[in-house]
Amino acid sequence: MLRLYDNRLSGNGYKPRLLMAHLGLTYERIELDTMTGETRTADFLALNPNGRIPLLQLGDGTCLAESNAILWYLAEGSRFLPAERLDRARTLQWMFFEQYSHEPNIAVARHWIQHLDMTDLQRAQLPAKQEGGHAALAVMEQHLGGAAWFGGGAMTIADIALYAYTHVADEGGFDLAPYPAVTAWLAHVAAEPGHVPMLPAPEGVVPISGGK
Amino acid sequence: MLRLYDNRLSGNGYKPRLLMAHLGLTYERIELDTMTGETRTADFLALNPNGRIPLLQLGDGTCLAESNAILWYLAEGSRFLPAERLDRARTLQWMFFEQYSHEPNIAVARHWIQHLDMTDLQRAQLPAKQEGGHAALAVMEQHLGGAAWFGGGAMTIADIALYAYTHVADEGGFDLAPYPAVTAWLAHVAAEPGHVPMLPAPEGVVPISGGK
Repeated sequence: MLRLYDNRLSGNGYKPRLLMAHLGLTYERIELDTMTGETRTADFLALNPNGRIPLLQLGDGTCLAESNAILWYLAEGSRFLPAERLDRARTLQWMFFEQYSHEPNIAVARHWIQHLDMTDLQRAQLPAKQEGGHAALAVMEQHLGGAAWFGGGAMTIADIALYAYTHVADEGGFDLAPYPAVTAWLAHVAAEPGHVPMLPAPEGVVPISGGK
Repeated sequence: MLRLYDNRLSGNGYKPRLLMAHLGLTYERIELDTMTGETRTADFLALNPNGRIPLLQLGDGTCLAESNAILWYLAEGSRFLPAERLDRARTLQWMFFEQYSHEPNIAVARHWIQHLDMTDLQRAQLPAKQEGGHAALAVMEQHLGGAAWFGGGAMTIADIALYAYTHVADEGGFDLAPYPAVTAWLAHVAAEPGHVPMLPAPEGVVPISGGK
């Protein structure tokens, strides 16, 4: 059986959870607390030397890291990965955009605001995170002005990758009101048959917003 | 003919240049100065709304952004992209690692040190960039203790992606002496038939180190 090392608050962890729900795959979920060092133990570092969740472990024990690489692996041969060469590269274009221009701004701002007593240095970096996050959202808004989805003519893993942190961007201090096409696309993703929400926060953790 | 919008000092631009040299592909190279706003003009933003090089333009005018997505597109069907499902996902794992854990530390430190009068905020972030870069190099060193390449049993686009900024890491203040397996791997990549070096710096720009 597939095993997912995961954290319930992680958007990166939510990506394979959402895809596996769409694909009807069952898996064992192992919750790790990234705030108390559970992804830095010797046992976990033996599975992923980079010490991060999500990590997918296959039935034979093989481990695969990086949320978007996990999405690609799981989606091969399914409707969530286009067959055509340019569409496949376009899907990856948006997934690399997500990890370079989107997540480091929107997800990191959310993480700092939600989970940490921010250091002075983090507080000083927050305006640049806000600026970078809004720049990413503007690029998405422009794309969605002329297309329904990111990776091709139908929902792909590029949409799943970008949905994960966009739909909780308000928890990072990002108001999505200036992005009506992004807001409509979020609703389309959530309306797809088989959709599952992010896991609720554990007891004692209060999300900034009303939750998603 | 393929056209590459590029900057000669960019490791991200070097990635498709190196792969196209290996594949024997000819292309037109358009040099853009990222420091004077040439990637932020209306004309360029019409090609890539995210305002970044490298950007690959196909013969029909279609544009593809994100260096690692460009690598994937160009490598499809070649020996630089494995055929087996897990090897393909592993190749992507290292390419996402490169864009999330490696480039934002090593390339950004190099960029700040080489090209900018650092702001106080950048100077304050530099220790974290150094720490993150060394953590990435340590993960690479550990992997290369048990494998010759990153994406499978032969050189793949994962190696090209990681080579681009690792081989100039010294220009970001990273001493590679503690990483003998990484140093040996760099030599193996450079010894592959068809290898081309990074472009030399333009006149007036003096690299920090003796150049690569």
